[in-house]
Amino acid sequence: MMRPPSSTTDRLEAFSDGVIAIAITLLILEIHVPPARQGHLLDALAHQWPSYVAFVLSFVTIGIMWVSHHSMFERIAAVDRKLLFINLLLLMGIGFLPFPTSLMATYVREGGTNSHIAAAIYSSTLVAIGIAFSGMWLHMARRPWLLAPGVPLERMQIAFKRSLVGPGLYLLTVGLAFISAPACFVAYALISLYFAAGPSSKVVTPADPAELDPDEAA
Amino acid sequence: MMRPPSSTTDRLEAFSDGVIAIAITLLILEIHVPPARQGHLLDALAHQWPSYVAFVLSFVTIGIMWVSHHSMFERIAAVDRKLLFINLLLLMGIGFLPFPTSLMATYVREGGTNSHIAAAIYSSTLVAIGIAFSGMWLHMARRPWLLAPGVPLERMQIAFKRSLVGPGLYLLTVGLAFISAPACFVAYALISLYFAAGPSSKVVTPADPAELDPDEAA
Amino acid sequence: MMRPPSSTTDRLEAFSDGVIAIAITLLILEIHVPPARQGHLLDALAHQWPSYVAFVLSFVTIGIMWVSHHSMFERIAAVDRKLLFINLLLLMGIGFLPFPTSLMATYVREGGTNSHIAAAIYSSTLVAIGIAFSGMWLHMARRPWLLAPGVPLERMQIAFKRSLVGPGLYLLTVGLAFISAPACFVAYALISLYFAAGPSSKVVTPADPAELDPDEAA
Amino acid sequence: MMRPPSSTTDRLEAFSDGVIAIAITLLILEIHVPPARQGHLLDALAHQWPSYVAFVLSFVTIGIMWVSHHSMFERIAAVDRKLLFINLLLLMGIGFLPFPTSLMATYVREGGTNSHIAAAIYSSTLVAIGIAFSGMWLHMARRPWLLAPGVPLERMQIAFKRSLVGPGLYLLTVGLAFISAPACFVAYALISLYFAAGPSSKVVTPADPAELDPDEAA
Repeated sequence: MMRPPSSTTDRLEAFSDGVIAIAITLLILEIHVPPARQGHLLDALAHQWPSYVAFVLSFVTIGIMWVSHHSMFERIAAVDRKLLFINLLLLMGIGFLPFPTSLMATYVREGGTNSHIAAAIYSSTLVAIGIAFSGMWLHMARRPWLLAPGVPLERMQIAFKRSLVGPGLYLLTVGLAFISAPACFVAYALISLYFAAGPSSKVVTPADPAELDPDEAA
Repeated sequence: MMRPPSSTTDRLEAFSDGVIAIAITLLILEIHVPPARQGHLLDALAHQWPSYVAFVLSFVTIGIMWVSHHSMFERIAAVDRKLLFINLLLLMGIGFLPFPTSLMATYVREGGTNSHIAAAIYSSTLVAIGIAFSGMWLHMARRPWLLAPGVPLERMQIAFKRSLVGPGLYLLTVGLAFISAPACFVAYALISLYFAAGPSSKVVTPADPAELDPDEAA
Repeated sequence: MMRPPSSTTDRLEAFSDGVIAIAITLLILEIHVPPARQGHLLDALAHQWPSYVAFVLSFVTIGIMWVSHHSMFERIAAVDRKLLFINLLLLMGIGFLPFPTSLMATYVREGGTNSHIAAAIYSSTLVAIGIAFSGMWLHMARRPWLLAPGVPLERMQIAFKRSLVGPGLYLLTVGLAFISAPACFVAYALISLYFAAGPSSKVVTPADPAELDPDEAA
Repeated sequence: MMRPPSSTTDRLEAFSDGVIAIAITLLILEIHVPPARQGHLLDALAHQWPSYVAFVLSFVTIGIMWVSHHSMFERIAAVDRKLLFINLLLLMGIGFLPFPTSLMATYVREGGTNSHIAAAIYSSTLVAIGIAFSGMWLHMARRPWLLAPGVPLERMQIAFKRSLVGPGLYLLTVGLAFISAPACFVAYALISLYFAAGPSSKVVTPADPAELDPDEAA
């Protein structure tokens, strides 16, 4: 009759998974059915190519963030209030991403200053999310009592350092945004490929979380 | 082949988490991509600053509500029909919040009566949600058979009393709304900070739910 | 390393909970911020009262459906393909409800034939959902091997019969719709009250699912 | 205090379930309340029949995809990085479906080239999703260490071969799209019926995943 004590850590991961799943699925609402005269639908659809590119890039980016987030929570056994709120900031960044995605899709084709602004805002959002990720790793690297049993503190410190690569790369694209917005599309795709790569045959469900490769921290 | 009996309490918390996660993520749909002439996107984006402020405030407010809701459910071992329906009212309030958020974002900059009305409706929604929270605590404080083992009834009575602080503070902002809507923004931020504060290094996953600090009831 | 075998029944309930949680939370998207001249926001908001009524009614109705759905799944230990698809039809009805809600909100104030049509469509959707619920009870009442251990088949037959009350009552409101749409609002509220009522102090998490009151089948 | 190690496989299935549940429920947002003069609401609603047909077809199609996805995950005990990303592509396809659904609903009635294009895009999306499904089966059929205990590799090879039927059938509808878009509606319905059929009285929660009928792989 009494339920087993539910874990705040599990609940927090489930709640975060929910927000991430909703944000990733809401992206499609930013792609609109274009009006088209008879026989011109294909042109009208082709015309809004930045919408599809932005959809795919944001979908893959959020998908990789889910992998990173889950990978992080595999090392967490308990959460404190501060971690709860850094995680909320992280979710706010991910929940905000559909807006810059739509902004990018609308203004990239136009070129000029507007496209630079749109790309810079998209890049800045990714920088902010990356900083929140790094903040979570740093927080854990200093609080061994929050870690899952058997996870050595040094691993977390390495994970924190590696987690800085993401926001660092995205910071470079803020600069790139003021040169060319379409170039940013290419850069986001390359960064996603970089994160998606890694030993692809490696089983991601290890018997022992301590054995996880720190590469996954990124 | 037979599954373990699922707990209504767990299911109710998961369902509530779902509604809260969706409400928090739908907030972004209220921020629209503004039309802008070439070179004027930054101005157009800056112009809709209340949208971003309202997004952040509502996101953080709902996030804190999730923490409170989970914290409450850690003390619940069983639910009765009445608790089920108070919880439904609570979810209705949270699910309604994207509307006053959008109302606030639209009318706060305009100033005058319209901005006062918008802020008063936003504040009233938060009062209503707070009352639903207090109603749940009160309900539990009177029904020891619903509580998790080891949770003393006195703790619940203290939690109920402390839970009145939230709707009390938000009631004051209903008054403030008729003086200044932007001042309400500041007030909401301060109230969120008040709730987010507390012993931030404290581990939120205690071994024994009875040991939880009644401060978290707010 | 190997995960425990996941239960299709649990997964199906979780998936259904997800759809129900999303449908209930999407309802708010049908309430729009009205344009209003300075000082006329309250009038503009009051003008769209049917939107709020429709929101509350649909929210409570879907909330009660969640309770019924969960209550039903407490008696299910296994699912077959047919149950899977009756459940999908049920979810389709619930997922469709935001549309008649919006239809009702738009046309009820106008009165005349349009309001009758809108109300009749809303009522018909509820009849269809109710039939799907009854279909699930009937399916289970004939297949003891799908039931949780200790749940007697006679209880399911009683539950099936009682489950016919819902679509029956809603069928009456299809007729009422052609007399008065606002009267339907009152009828929906009364039907919800009828379902929400019952022994409210009763603990809904019983030790033994077989002891559950067949009243909850409705 | 320490939570049990959470399984990446379980989390991935829960995340996928979330995305699928959201995509299926967002479909209703594509059905709009039509403007109608007094007494003409029924005509206006009847006029947008393709919206309802597209809603029902996509709802059932995604529902069947959920069944297939869950059925697949019952054989998975561990995931590797590559499976993670094939699954992400699969989710992207499902998350994209609301757009071609809306496209189809808008252009099918108009006839001519535009309706052919819309139907071809809808069909192509289903082909892409089907290929992603087959990709997952193929990946598993070659990696016995990812399979649940007792699932023979030969079953997975059969499952992979059978999974090619889906994209094969949908590929035929790409061709059909250029003859008649409404005919595609009929074809999608027949394909769904084909997948929904099968031994409907069969219990889908077997004691032993190895005993599952390979028919369910489709």
